[in-house]
Amino acid sequence: MRAARQVGRSLPRLEARAKVTGRAEYIHNLQLPGMLYGKLVRSPIAHGTIRRIDAEAARAMAGVHAVITSAEVRQIIPSPYYGPAFHDQPILAIDKVRHIGEPVAAVLAADAAIAEAAAQLVTVEYDELPGIFDEVEAATSPVLVHEALKPAGTFADLKHLGGKRGTNVALEFRLRRGDVERAFAAAGQVFEHSFRSQPVMHTPLEPMVALAEATEASVTIHTASQSPSFVRIEIARLLGWPENRVRVRTAYLGGGFGAKLYIKLEALVTALALLARRPVKVSLTMEEQFYTITRHACTVRIKSAVDRDGRITARRCEVWWNGGAYADIGPRVTQKSGFTAAGPYDIENVAIDSVALYTNRPPAGALRGFGIPQLVWAYESHTDLIARALALDPVEFRRRNILREGRPQATGTVMRDAAIAAVLERLAQKLEWGRPFERGTGPVKRGRGIALGFKASISPTASVALVTIAADGSCAVQCGTVDMGQGSDTAMAQIAAEVLNLPAESVRIVHPDTDVTPYDMATLGSRSTFHMGNAVKRAAEDARDKLAALAAELGLPPGANVEIAELFRRRYGMQAGTIIGTASFLPSYAPPDLATGLTDNATPFWMVGATGVELEVDSETGRVRLLRLVTVADVGTPLNPRIVETQLSGAAIMQLGFTLLESMEFDRDGQLKNPSFADYKIPGLGDLPARIESETVAASQHSGPFGAKGVGESGTFGVSPAIANAIHDAVGVRLTSLPLTPEAIYRAIRAAAGDSLAEE
Amino acid sequence: MRAARQVGRSLPRLEARAKVTGRAEYIHNLQLPGMLYGKLVRSPIAHGTIRRIDAEAARAMAGVHAVITSAEVRQIIPSPYYGPAFHDQPILAIDKVRHIGEPVAAVLAADAAIAEAAAQLVTVEYDELPGIFDEVEAATSPVLVHEALKPAGTFADLKHLGGKRGTNVALEFRLRRGDVERAFAAAGQVFEHSFRSQPVMHTPLEPMVALAEATEASVTIHTASQSPSFVRIEIARLLGWPENRVRVRTAYLGGGFGAKLYIKLEALVTALALLARRPVKVSLTMEEQFYTITRHACTVRIKSAVDRDGRITARRCEVWWNGGAYADIGPRVTQKSGFTAAGPYDIENVAIDSVALYTNRPPAGALRGFGIPQLVWAYESHTDLIARALALDPVEFRRRNILREGRPQATGTVMRDAAIAAVLERLAQKLEWGRPFERGTGPVKRGRGIALGFKASISPTASVALVTIAADGSCAVQCGTVDMGQGSDTAMAQIAAEVLNLPAESVRIVHPDTDVTPYDMATLGSRSTFHMGNAVKRAAEDARDKLAALAAELGLPPGANVEIAELFRRRYGMQAGTIIGTASFLPSYAPPDLATGLTDNATPFWMVGATGVELEVDSETGRVRLLRLVTVADVGTPLNPRIVETQLSGAAIMQLGFTLLESMEFDRDGQLKNPSFADYKIPGLGDLPARIESETVAASQHSGPFGAKGVGESGTFGVSPAIANAIHDAVGVRLTSLPLTPEAIYRAIRAAAGDSLAEE
Repeated sequence: MRAARQVGRSLPRLEARAKVTGRAEYIHNLQLPGMLYGKLVRSPIAHGTIRRIDAEAARAMAGVHAVITSAEVRQIIPSPYYGPAFHDQPILAIDKVRHIGEPVAAVLAADAAIAEAAAQLVTVEYDELPGIFDEVEAATSPVLVHEALKPAGTFADLKHLGGKRGTNVALEFRLRRGDVERAFAAAGQVFEHSFRSQPVMHTPLEPMVALAEATEASVTIHTASQSPSFVRIEIARLLGWPENRVRVRTAYLGGGFGAKLYIKLEALVTALALLARRPVKVSLTMEEQFYTITRHACTVRIKSAVDRDGRITARRCEVWWNGGAYADIGPRVTQKSGFTAAGPYDIENVAIDSVALYTNRPPAGALRGFGIPQLVWAYESHTDLIARALALDPVEFRRRNILREGRPQATGTVMRDAAIAAVLERLAQKLEWGRPFERGTGPVKRGRGIALGFKASISPTASVALVTIAADGSCAVQCGTVDMGQGSDTAMAQIAAEVLNLPAESVRIVHPDTDVTPYDMATLGSRSTFHMGNAVKRAAEDARDKLAALAAELGLPPGANVEIAELFRRRYGMQAGTIIGTASFLPSYAPPDLATGLTDNATPFWMVGATGVELEVDSETGRVRLLRLVTVADVGTPLNPRIVETQLSGAAIMQLGFTLLESMEFDRDGQLKNPSFADYKIPGLGDLPARIESETVAASQHSGPFGAKGVGESGTFGVSPAIANAIHDAVGVRLTSLPLTPEAIYRAIRAAAGDSLAEE
Repeated sequence: MRAARQVGRSLPRLEARAKVTGRAEYIHNLQLPGMLYGKLVRSPIAHGTIRRIDAEAARAMAGVHAVITSAEVRQIIPSPYYGPAFHDQPILAIDKVRHIGEPVAAVLAADAAIAEAAAQLVTVEYDELPGIFDEVEAATSPVLVHEALKPAGTFADLKHLGGKRGTNVALEFRLRRGDVERAFAAAGQVFEHSFRSQPVMHTPLEPMVALAEATEASVTIHTASQSPSFVRIEIARLLGWPENRVRVRTAYLGGGFGAKLYIKLEALVTALALLARRPVKVSLTMEEQFYTITRHACTVRIKSAVDRDGRITARRCEVWWNGGAYADIGPRVTQKSGFTAAGPYDIENVAIDSVALYTNRPPAGALRGFGIPQLVWAYESHTDLIARALALDPVEFRRRNILREGRPQATGTVMRDAAIAAVLERLAQKLEWGRPFERGTGPVKRGRGIALGFKASISPTASVALVTIAADGSCAVQCGTVDMGQGSDTAMAQIAAEVLNLPAESVRIVHPDTDVTPYDMATLGSRSTFHMGNAVKRAAEDARDKLAALAAELGLPPGANVEIAELFRRRYGMQAGTIIGTASFLPSYAPPDLATGLTDNATPFWMVGATGVELEVDSETGRVRLLRLVTVADVGTPLNPRIVETQLSGAAIMQLGFTLLESMEFDRDGQLKNPSFADYKIPGLGDLPARIESETVAASQHSGPFGAKGVGESGTFGVSPAIANAIHDAVGVRLTSLPLTPEAIYRAIRAAAGDSLAEE
């Protein structure tokens, strides 16, 4: 009997009941017998050498088990530097500190309050050094964050792009297509603008936490991580152990958004547990997260040549990424996002320089969108400005330039399964773009704007899956994808269920545990639905094939209507046995040429997202009120339309916060002024538009599982420039730096009116 | 490069360091947030109906979370009866109690001491019923332990042998080969004896413990269990849930010996956790283990016809197994051991009746040897008495009758890979049997004795294994075999390492967790080395084949000398991926004919063990001092000679305790008089023989992994009769009931001397 189709169903999330009843497992709730709490002593300065650490008072405090510094760490890990791109980040600061809040020492106690109090007693003397904070200045500054670069990490290709000795340049990616200089020389008109994005934080509401148990022979790390396989490999490397002596398990995550990727607390808790010979747990406060990982501040200079038909003939992009003190995955952001910096447009001549810089800011890494929102912010503001200058309708101007199916993208990769034009058209249709738009009266002006972005998926990365069938026919999927709220458990259940003809609700998803769930690169970059989805689909097919083989072995004719449980009973004489399907998935990929950045296979799939906004600006206060936020995306064929819709809306709202509200404010010494939710404002219900609409265009990713591809980031792409474009539409001023605060808008309005307030 | 051979190495146990440093995980140490302790209210009588349970005072006690009886259990599990053979055992007593110590209610509190104190406040009123305790009397007694039999369980074949309505017979196994009546009629001489074995306990030094966490959707049970897959299936059946909603995980076990098989506390903690909506842990005291599971007391009547050449021509065996109040796996003991009751001799005409009886004793189940030691006790005492009567040397008498390779056993199954004759000869050689034996002087007499037993393996049972290889080439084995001290982790590591050409020390064994380790029938009956060993070997071969396929895919010539880690790097471009080998193993088997008990394929392999003892008996006190205990066994080709040797010695010492020291003593009302180690004596160092020697004969189990087969029980077989035979040899008296206490020996000596003391 054929069950109803399991993919395409808006099945509620499998874990919904466990979460709303408070029974879902989070590492924060985990306690182990004999466990110690670790609290960190952090650097109060942005850059300096450590002269002396005095931990005597802390060690003397009753209940303190130990105070650990890099000296102790290096007794067990001689080279305690980690990182996905480069091995540049020490477990605890060694000799110097490079950013505000950098961990310098850890205090261990069975009582967390005692550890916290003792941490206050640790005195660290520093010789302060001048800091470098701006990404553009960092490119040429004599102030060096790292005296020596460490270009060795997981990704071989980054090594070759990495680092200029004696500079703060961590990595330089360049792309050269066509002849940009000639095209600019021949251009009808040339437009050039610069745009800046501010540093922001991921703010997962479950702060980072990790707990390690260790013996001489093995370590088990329980961690709120998006990348258990990476953690396993990196901890094994640090310890000089084989992978099979390192076990990493995760539970549900209270959000990740890129903050919980690679190594965050895992190396620290491992070192602490080995030194203390006790389980050690470190859980950060919300404030500490601000010092741990951020999103890249970014400066983009973008210049386009346009012919008389409104066709863009050349584009040059220069992108400076503020990577903070340690590279984390910044070099990959620089390269992977860099090659799309010219936008989803069909441009013959493109030059891109995308540069990762070290600064004395807290490290920047992956954050939902992986650099793309910063680039779209630039190129779609720029696009709007050009259309405005050409007096072309912004939809029409995009239509003339849009990158269509079968045409080569800047890298030379021919576009396939990227419904960019369809997304643009559907957005225009939803906004009734052709109809007259009500402009408002009085000081409150109405405007509308659109923006359009695209993103490549990270590649090449592998996912491996197990699909097991128990003797009663019930099914479990063992995979390393971390459900951090995005609904991956539900998607994987739907895929396995579709193949095995089961109700998706009946499939059990086993959470990552590297002892038993096979390798998965990480849960990031909207890769799981495509990569792990393909692996799960193939593993389920393998299990289905094994069931068919079992039936044949039992002498049943093909297609015989025998229940799975009955097959097991006949084979084993009782309820016994397990059918195990396995598969690995690795998409094909061609690395870009190092000199030109060109490749004919840049990505396994493209993500496309567009945003339309309608808003009001109070021209007397600068206050913006969003009336309508429309997201249209190509996600291939949605596996679960309702989850896809909420993913698109959630991404849009997150980016809305980064556009209108959020900003990490540093003073000139690199001190963070607002590391709390009292001062760092994230969107609340009152900040949301009255209407939020998200939808997908009819599409199929032919290489994806049941036509699906990633969706977690596409809603972020266009939000910032769509809002800026709408503000321009409403009140005639152009903002080029995020966030778009009432103050900034107000100043721009006054400046446009010639008022001196703007100059303050 | 070829590593040294990994099988055949006396590798120290992988977990040795973790255990001696106190870092090995045991469920006893596990605590979960919000956990409650459950303490049991137990029946003080052996048989009676429950009139009333008054839990008011207990419920009123501060700190008590709940008092649970069967009434509450049945709200969530309408038919709360479990058991591997029959579903006859209630989670908590329903309407009546059937043995001393039967659980009637459970008290839950966050503090174990409060739960314990409150349990004392629960008042239960009973209407006492007459009890039946003796297995032979139970066969015909009007006192019925169960008014209705419940012959439904895991094993379909047992149903057909199960239960006579209106009796205490749980199962009757019969075997009929040749024409026993005619052979007896024609016999030169006929010998008949009866032997009794006492009830004893497994005494794992880690008492039983289980901890359940449950939601409406799933339950996780952490348990010191030898049979996680069985627990999963049985709990799923009780709850009416699919298997994939039940997760069972184990850690190291502090001994099992059969006590921790099937359901012990798992159904109880599951019900309690579901009712309390909190994690619940129940850990038994040593005393409580006496009420939970025991070894079958047993009466054997054995009769042989012998011709003038000293050849046994016929044998009739009647065996009554005292199963206690619930069947547990007793019916399987009755059948599986039953068919070997005639011993390892080549006898044309055999009749066996093996009967499982219900009595009002605590339940009896599997214990190392699975009934065989009780049978060998009878047939090897009997063999010695016949040899003595025929004035034949006991080795020579056995030589004339021994079951040789290629000859049919009583079931008709032709013997293969059973080195019975070689074991006998090697034992005689080690004992220098042909040489004069020093008899001692004065009141201390010396004697020697031998005995020989064999055992079939349980069949058909399946094992499924996963062998995974991480991207650095390190290997893990995921399997459901429970290492309870027998060294199975080490054996599995050696098997996988041999196939994959790795050092066995480098292989990680992942402990059972039914979410991720595939099905295994159970860790019992010496089946793991053979069954799981074969599964692991095949899974490792599958992994090896996949590595070879990967090398071929990468264009490497066959046999190219490329490291595994390099294969992964070439395939994935970095340290990534997992190779997964899988295999299931199910030996062939032919079930016995229900009427005759005959089959041509009774077992996947035979275990053979022989014991020789030299001892002194103080004829003035009856005190026995063992001088030498020699075990010789056929274990196929040992995977780890040192572990095999310690397994044989350990088994012999355990059986030595059951022979000389241990006995559960019941009064006439069924009260257990000695449920503590103060009164129930297990062997200490002072009880051990001066010389303990264990060795294996050169042999190979051709169907086993690298020629190996099970070894955990073979050392138990011959111990009791070898000692009784040696006592007879020393002081001329024959004991037919276990244990062989000084008092019993003294009385027998005095009785032989015509002294009335013996009659008391």
